This record gives sequence, structure tokens and C-alpha cells, in this order.
Amino acid sequence: MGEKSSKNSKISRKRFIKNGALALGATALVGCQSTAKNETEGININSGKKYQWKMVTTWPPKFPVVGEGCQLIADWISEMSGGQLTVKVYGGGELAPALETFEAVSSGAAEMGNGASYYWAGKAPSASFFSSVPFGMNAQQMHAWILHGGGYPLWRELYARFNLVPFLSGNTGVQMGGWFNKEINTMEDFKGLKMRMPGLGGKVLVKAGGTAVLSPGSELYTNLERGVIDATEWIGPYHDYLMGFHQIAKFYYSPGWHEPGTVLETIVNKRAYEDLPKHLQAIVASACERLTMWCLSDFEARNNEYLNKIKEESDVEMRSFPKEVMDELRILSQEVIDELVASDPFAKKVYQSFSTFSKGVKSWAGQSEKLFHNLV
Amino acid sequence: MGEKSSKNSKISRKRFIKNGALALGATALVGCQSTAKNETEGININSGKKYQWKMVTTWPPKFPVVGEGCQLIADWISEMSGGQLTVKVYGGGELAPALETFEAVSSGAAEMGNGASYYWAGKAPSASFFSSVPFGMNAQQMHAWILHGGGYPLWRELYARFNLVPFLSGNTGVQMGGWFNKEINTMEDFKGLKMRMPGLGGKVLVKAGGTAVLSPGSELYTNLERGVIDATEWIGPYHDYLMGFHQIAKFYYSPGWHEPGTVLETIVNKRAYEDLPKHLQAIVASACERLTMWCLSDFEARNNEYLNKIKEESDVEMRSFPKEVMDELRILSQEVIDELVASDPFAKKVYQSFSTFSKGVKSWAGQSEKLFHNLV
Repeated sequence: MGEKSSKNSKISRKRFIKNGALALGATALVGCQSTAKNETEGININSGKKYQWKMVTTWPPKFPVVGEGCQLIADWISEMSGGQLTVKVYGGGELAPALETFEAVSSGAAEMGNGASYYWAGKAPSASFFSSVPFGMNAQQMHAWILHGGGYPLWRELYARFNLVPFLSGNTGVQMGGWFNKEINTMEDFKGLKMRMPGLGGKVLVKAGGTAVLSPGSELYTNLERGVIDATEWIGPYHDYLMGFHQIAKFYYSPGWHEPGTVLETIVNKRAYEDLPKHLQAIVASACERLTMWCLSDFEARNNEYLNKIKEESDVEMRSFPKEVMDELRILSQEVIDELVASDPFAKKVYQSFSTFSKGVKSWAGQSEKLFHNLV
Repeated sequence: MGEKSSKNSKISRKRFIKNGALALGATALVGCQSTAKNETEGININSGKKYQWKMVTTWPPKFPVVGEGCQLIADWISEMSGGQLTVKVYGGGELAPALETFEAVSSGAAEMGNGASYYWAGKAPSASFFSSVPFGMNAQQMHAWILHGGGYPLWRELYARFNLVPFLSGNTGVQMGGWFNKEINTMEDFKGLKMRMPGLGGKVLVKAGGTAVLSPGSELYTNLERGVIDATEWIGPYHDYLMGFHQIAKFYYSPGWHEPGTVLETIVNKRAYEDLPKHLQAIVASACERLTMWCLSDFEARNNEYLNKIKEESDVEMRSFPKEVMDELRILSQEVIDELVASDPFAKKVYQSFSTFSKGVKSWAGQSEKLFHNLV
């Protein structure tokens, strides 16, 4: 499409970032109002000890969907506790660097944090299994594994070592394959490619001869525009549009083989959590988990509309990875998993649970969801 | 498989029903313990007015998954409110007949209820859209429509007429097509067939020449065994196995064309809800919605295992509906929807929202979930 609509979306993107930067003040105000409102109703729920928590996040301030979701958790906690527990949400870089969220909550510098577990694979290699595994499970299957298939106890065991309690607290759904400035026709095209890709997907990219960069969302547009990276994946059409990648990349690939249903997490400092009275612990757990469906549904509800906007407002060309590339990526993905499992005893334990569950749930999907999608 | 394993599963089924019948006492006890526990901690959250609510349900007492889920909502509410609001859960027939849950909550005889909206299509024809539409949307898509696509405001508007507030509060996932004692080879085989099937699916069955029976879960096994009905659908392998249908039916069909992702609901008496202080309203909303992922994940996690058990422990033969039957059922489904929309102005309004959203979200699924399922 023409120059004009491209400019419009550039304006949208600036506004999106600017709103983000301005958001924290407004956010804190909302929290105060909500507390005050409950107090004026004469409910004595506030007569217990009050708690004021901080939540650090891997997202820019007031980031659409995932950052808004953090504020929603804070709002829900404040509402449900009648203001007894309030949570102030910080964007990445405001209280701690985005990718130091894990350390900040582990140390108790903040009581809560929000991100995705593969960001911490450097500290806990098996953490990746609780966010996303290339060619792994989709959102519905990941949630089933975590809640009813043995995932949660393992996740809690792993994070307890870091003084953390993890909560399933968001999902992106099936992601897109990413933004490229050159076509991917054979595996050769990954050689020398510098691409932002976290988690196990990043390790697959390295095996394919590329360089995997782990950087927070706030840096991606600039890095791609300036050529610091050649390509980036992010989430899916809705959020990718807001990030503005269609203005600076030539090709948009599907599917997101590396992230078929990425789980987002809220982490809570274990000591702070255990210091809460039981009813506030229950409120925190409920708010965190409730966000999962809210977040997944937000992406699901808007991706089609924004995919159309990307097609209409830019010259980006849609591409699918060739079958032979997918087949090869799948082989490399299994190699990455095998190496991880061989190097870390806890990863072996997690993968046993993950892979057994995955096999069963995919067999059922072949009789249910797959039939549904091929029917319509 | 042999006689022995068949007997074993008969025993399991009896235990399942027996546990159900005994469950309510234990259930009430758990609630009391949970309240007491919080009180002994010295939190003054209970100093506000206390509320004791009743929840009526369409399920037999302590029914696996869906009935357990109702108790979980009650437990969560009690925990989060520190016992300020307690909810006693009643199985169908204990306080009100299972299929009179809607009236019981509407009138205020009980403050809460749990079931699925298509059970009330006789009172509010458009209600079916908020549970399941034949060839409609799956769980992920339904949740996206309700939470972020315009579904919730319409659902609330409809239920407000009945003095009710609805909450998205469970999902079965893609269901199975049901249990039959004769094969379905052509549309002729539906003629004269007396089958338990609620909602719009039931109307499609009638169009196909069959008789649709709406009966609660508690009656299905006996009705099928005694030939009161010729066939029944229920949910999927996990729950169907617990119901014991594999012991008395010859064929198990897939897919559940009539219920691709049935939403379960918790309804709250509007006046009772508005009489709650804000923090308890927030707690009720959170507990109800949190159950959705818990419930869907429970079905998703166990369906494969129980499908295998059905195959191993019985002589049931698995079947898929022939393509020509599916094509014809789809045409009849659209006729049923068109007639409903023509007969009820509110149904027209709901269907406009539903169908527009459905078209968009399925287009996105073709680039995401469908690719995922065909990849693995």
C-alpha cells in the first residue's frame, strides 16, 4: 500500500510507545482510586495489616495486552482484597532492567514479576519447558499439562530454588514465524542470520548457523531498523502490528514453529507470598491465573483484524516456511532438546513429564481439535 | 476386550455414582473447615457482614470435573473472602431439579447456579449462542468472543431480563459425536432416532427426522440401557467413560459437530450480586472465570487416556460420521440458526456478533491453530 497509510501507522506506533511511557502515573492513580472506593463503603476488610507490593515486568510500561494484563492483575488484587493488598506495576527498566525481572523478584527487590520462563533459561535451563518448546504444545495443551498433567509441581520445584512461586498467567497462542528482510528458501538462508529469538527456538537457530539474540520488546524495532539484527520474531499479528515491524521488514513468515503456545508467567517472591495471610495468597493465585484466558483471548480476538491491517497498510509479503525447512528445523529442535536433557538432570525430569503428556494430548487432538480445524 | 475388564469398569461406574451420592456432606464439611482455618489466623476480614449462599447445579452431586468445579468455585470464594462469603453447593435434584437451575437462581431461591446456557433455550432462544453452536467456534474462539469480541455484553443483556448475571465458567473442549447402537451411514439413519441432545444440535436432529430429548446427566445411563433413548451424546472420552456408556452402546462417533467447544456458565442472582460489597463481587467474578481454564484443562488432560481405556475395556467400535452426513448436518445447522434468528430479534443481534467474529477468528485459525495441528 501507499506512503500515506504507512505514515499513519508510524504515527500509531509512536503514540503506542508514548502512551506506554506516560502510563505509570495514570496506572498508580487507578490503583489508589480503587482502594479508596472500597474504603468509603464501610467494609472493614481493611482492618487487617495492609500490604503494598511492587511488580516488575519484562514489558515496556503499559504495554498493550501483556503489560495491560499486569495492571489488570494489580487491579483485581486490589479490588478483591478491598485494598488490603495493593500492587504497583513497573515497566521494564523502571525499577529493574526488563530481563532482570527474575533476579529482582528472587532477591525480594520486588514481590512480583511478569514475563516468560524462557527468559531465565540462562539461570535454570529447564525453565524453557514452562513457556514454549519448538514443535511442542499449543496453549490449550500447555495449560492442561501445567494444571492437570504434572507441570505445576515441577515448575514450583524448580522455582523454589530461586525463592520464587510461579503462576500460569497468560498465553500468546500460536505465534507467527517472524519478520525477515530476505526470503527463507533453504536452511542455507539461516546461516549468518542474526535474529531475535528467545528460548529453545534460539538454540535451534544457532544450530542452523544463525545467531540468536535475546532482547526485550522495547529494543526490537530500533535494532531491526538499524540492522543490529537481520530478523525478529515477536508474537502474532495484533501485537506485531503495534510494534510497527511491518514498516521495516519485507517478509512476514508463518507458522511460529518455535512458539506454538507460549505461556506467560507471574512470579512471586516465595517469602513474601508465605508472609501473606491465606486469603491474600488465594487472591493473588486467582488473579494471576485468571489473566491467562483474558490474555490468550485478547490475542485470539484481534489477530485476524491486524493481519488484515498489515496486509492493507504495508508492502510486507506473507510467506510460509518451505516444508523441507520445517522438517529440518524439527530435527534440529529435537537435537536441542536432547542436549538440554543430557546436560541437566532436572530438565530430564521435566522433559519426561512434558513429552509423555504431549504425546497423549496430541493423539486426542487428532480426534478433536484437528478434525474441528479441518472441518471449518 | 474380555468379560473381566468389562466388569471392572462396571464396578468403577458404581463407585463413581455412589461417591457422587455421598459427596454433599463431605463437601459442606470442607467449606466449614476452610472458613474456620482463616478465622483462627486472626485476620479481621470477617468483621464485615457475612454472606451464606446456595449454588444449585445441573449436575449430580460431586460430579467429576463439572461438579467438582462448582465446589472449587465455592472453596475459592470462601478462601479469598476469608469466610465472609460461603457457598454451599447442591447437586441437581437436591434443592431444585437439575434443569430448573435457571429458575431457582432467577427467583432467588438460590443465589448461584451452574450449567450451560443451552439448557434454557426454551426460556431464552438466543441463550444457545453462549454455550455451543453446531459447526460453530471451539473453546479458545468462544472465550475470545465472550471476553473480547462482544459476547459478554450481549449475554449480560439477555440474562438481566431474568434477574441473572452470567459468568464464563467452564468449557468441555471439542466433544465427541455420541454413543449409538446402530451405525450412521446416511442421513436416513437419523430418521426415528430418539437421542439425548440439547441446544441447537437437538433442533438439527429433529430436522433430520429424529427426536431430541433434553435430560440431565443423571438419567442418561438408565435411559440408554432401558431403550428410553436410542442414542446419547454427553461430553468426551474422560467423562463418557465415567458415565459408563461404553458398557451399553455399540458405537462411539466423532467428531462432536454439534458441540465444538461448549461453554459452561455460572449464573448469579442479579439482586444478590448487587447487594454484595464490591470486593466480594470481584471475588465471585474471579472464582467463576478462573474455573474455565481449570475445567477445560481437566478434560484436555484426560481424554486421551480414557479414550484408550474405552477401547481396551469394551467392545465399542469407533466411527467417524461420513462426509456426506457431515455436509448435510452442516446445511441443516444453518437452517436451524436462520430460523432462530428470524424468530427472535435478540437472537438476530447475538448472531450478527457471533457470526462476524466467527468468520474472522476462523480465518486466523487457518494461519495458526490449523497449521499447528496439521504439523504435528
